[in-house]
Amino acid sequence: MPQTPESSDAVAQHADDPVFDLHLGGKMEIASTVALAGPDDLSMAYTPGVARVCEAIAADPALVDDYTWVANTVAVVTDGTAVLGLGDIGPSAAMPVMEGKAVLFKQFGGVDAVPICLNTKDTDEIVETVARLAPSFGGINLEDISAPRCFEIEQRLKDLLDIPVFHDDQHGTAVVALAALEGALRLTRRDIAKARVVISGAGAAGVAVARILLAAGVSDLAVIDRRGVLNSSRGDLTPVKESLARDTADRTGRTGSLADALTGADVFIGVSGGNVPEEVVATMADEAVIFGLANPTPEVHPEVAHRHARVVATGRSDYPNQINNVLAFPGIFRGAFDVRATAITENMKLAAANALAGLVGDDVREDYIVPSPFDERVGPAVSAAVAEAARQDGVARR
Amino acid sequence: MPQTPESSDAVAQHADDPVFDLHLGGKMEIASTVALAGPDDLSMAYTPGVARVCEAIAADPALVDDYTWVANTVAVVTDGTAVLGLGDIGPSAAMPVMEGKAVLFKQFGGVDAVPICLNTKDTDEIVETVARLAPSFGGINLEDISAPRCFEIEQRLKDLLDIPVFHDDQHGTAVVALAALEGALRLTRRDIAKARVVISGAGAAGVAVARILLAAGVSDLAVIDRRGVLNSSRGDLTPVKESLARDTADRTGRTGSLADALTGADVFIGVSGGNVPEEVVATMADEAVIFGLANPTPEVHPEVAHRHARVVATGRSDYPNQINNVLAFPGIFRGAFDVRATAITENMKLAAANALAGLVGDDVREDYIVPSPFDERVGPAVSAAVAEAARQDGVARR
Repeated sequence: MPQTPESSDAVAQHADDPVFDLHLGGKMEIASTVALAGPDDLSMAYTPGVARVCEAIAADPALVDDYTWVANTVAVVTDGTAVLGLGDIGPSAAMPVMEGKAVLFKQFGGVDAVPICLNTKDTDEIVETVARLAPSFGGINLEDISAPRCFEIEQRLKDLLDIPVFHDDQHGTAVVALAALEGALRLTRRDIAKARVVISGAGAAGVAVARILLAAGVSDLAVIDRRGVLNSSRGDLTPVKESLARDTADRTGRTGSLADALTGADVFIGVSGGNVPEEVVATMADEAVIFGLANPTPEVHPEVAHRHARVVATGRSDYPNQINNVLAFPGIFRGAFDVRATAITENMKLAAANALAGLVGDDVREDYIVPSPFDERVGPAVSAAVAEAARQDGVARR
Repeated sequence: MPQTPESSDAVAQHADDPVFDLHLGGKMEIASTVALAGPDDLSMAYTPGVARVCEAIAADPALVDDYTWVANTVAVVTDGTAVLGLGDIGPSAAMPVMEGKAVLFKQFGGVDAVPICLNTKDTDEIVETVARLAPSFGGINLEDISAPRCFEIEQRLKDLLDIPVFHDDQHGTAVVALAALEGALRLTRRDIAKARVVISGAGAAGVAVARILLAAGVSDLAVIDRRGVLNSSRGDLTPVKESLARDTADRTGRTGSLADALTGADVFIGVSGGNVPEEVVATMADEAVIFGLANPTPEVHPEVAHRHARVVATGRSDYPNQINNVLAFPGIFRGAFDVRATAITENMKLAAANALAGLVGDDVREDYIVPSPFDERVGPAVSAAVAEAARQDGVARR
């Protein structure tokens, strides 16, 4: 087919970059799981035979999970407002990330995922649109939606729908960060209940990491935004931050700046994208643990971090200890789908983190606090733990 | 995994039916088109590499068609209100049909299709929902949405979006019916401009068949609903029917019942689901042409039709001359996508019908007025004709 000069020029412009070459035509496709070799096959998979399946589902709606792809399919929904480190780039520019996510869902979890990039940033419109689509999917993975809208959107969809709703930027990050923290604490022989932990960043990821650490037993936790430690004496907190302040620094009385909080701290978890000066890093406790999760530029560069800490992790694939959501979301949805869970509970997330930490176990080393995404044990271990937790929490439908 | 008694009982109940066996787990899946064998692949298909592709699309939105699956992907959208002959069975029960459609899109057109079953029947809500989803797709195939809402929904989406929007129950049926009519007229040596044609049914399919026949040159056309021939002297017509009356029976002055219209008619096309008594069929012209397209029960049973007509076609796969939309929609979207068409025009539909009729050509026989869906020439012929018509109409973007 002839291309317009514009289109072929635009493609030619990126021809030297192997990343663009890999993305040409997209990264995914639909495949049939049934053979259509002739009219007989057609009359079973399509009319007239398919009508019997439709009638059976109309009579017993639960059968949609048995006789369609719905129960194995997740919508990866974004409005393109908080894509990677790029910010609000819109729904079309977000699509390559959503396709990437879909490909990872399939490879690491056997989950079919469909990218849904929405042409609206309005909270109400996003909620109602996803609710209207919901019969088409067995779960909703919210992705790269900016805070604080992401909190309300997730909560309202959880209230509306009886299928798993999961904002991966929050909970995927939180699950893997907790797993990595468990490994680091084991290595440095610290008790999670006594560790002094500081989180820099109170957006989607920061809030979720804080919540899962509290659920896992962290008792001395300070969460920091641009204006310092979240605590109730500040008059500038959103409801989400105020609630978090009550459960974190209000309990220890900590206040002040990031530098104040980090002095003597055991663990630093950066999910803010800022930069922590080396002289501040140097004030942390001995055998410190530093996770700089901003991508591509960690809050503390690994070389700097290693001068002052025993365990260092980043979100990058070119350093050891990559804290990568792909360790979590495919297995979490696999486990939820295996038991047809109606929700993803706090215990299911904790179970996923513990399963990841358990795979490292006694093999934990400074450069091995989480497994590799390519460790074939990851998906099965996470999904089994999540399925079991779903049963214990009473959200499994089988 | 253990199943609840309900679920396994429900599946066991259908275990003897091979159609249910084929549908178990659904008929489709997502597949990756890129290899993810290790961290290097991951860093190209996902972070950090994917960010470069996102930034390029943010800077030049047209690149989304080159570097994502969007330009090859159609949403198959339904509200489940007019599914096959089953009526309003809802979005979940409609899913097996939408999956079937998706599988046919891929097999016969190489088009990736995603079923979207909506949890609303409200015209405004359907329009706004599809408009919000639109960045995720290169085209919209509306399916099994009841009349008259389907007309307004299609028109409003065509006005709102710059991608193809196509209500298959209307236009797919119309394209294949026209192709079949061209074959039948050739066989019976009739001039399309002089043939007397009667369409029974003024719903989605009836209106669209009438419109394409008018565009193809039929000049003596009567369209019939439950109350008789559509003509402007009737006071009970919807705007869609009134407009159609002006372009059909008003021109010839025909009025009255189906029996009145069929007396001496050359062609009967049934898209109503009713039944035409044999004594009425017997009043048609010599060498009559009868298309009974209701599924599974044609308006005139083929055995009855053959006693009074030379050419008989149905929508069924177990009789010759199956007028099946699958001959049209995969190639139409393939052709539209190949040139990145911004719309599907009347000429593109006519071109598709002519391409189908051209494949039969001089080989036309009483039992061969349209090609088989499994004729491998169909997809390429239809798509090439549609792409060429798109260029002529100025709606091709390459």
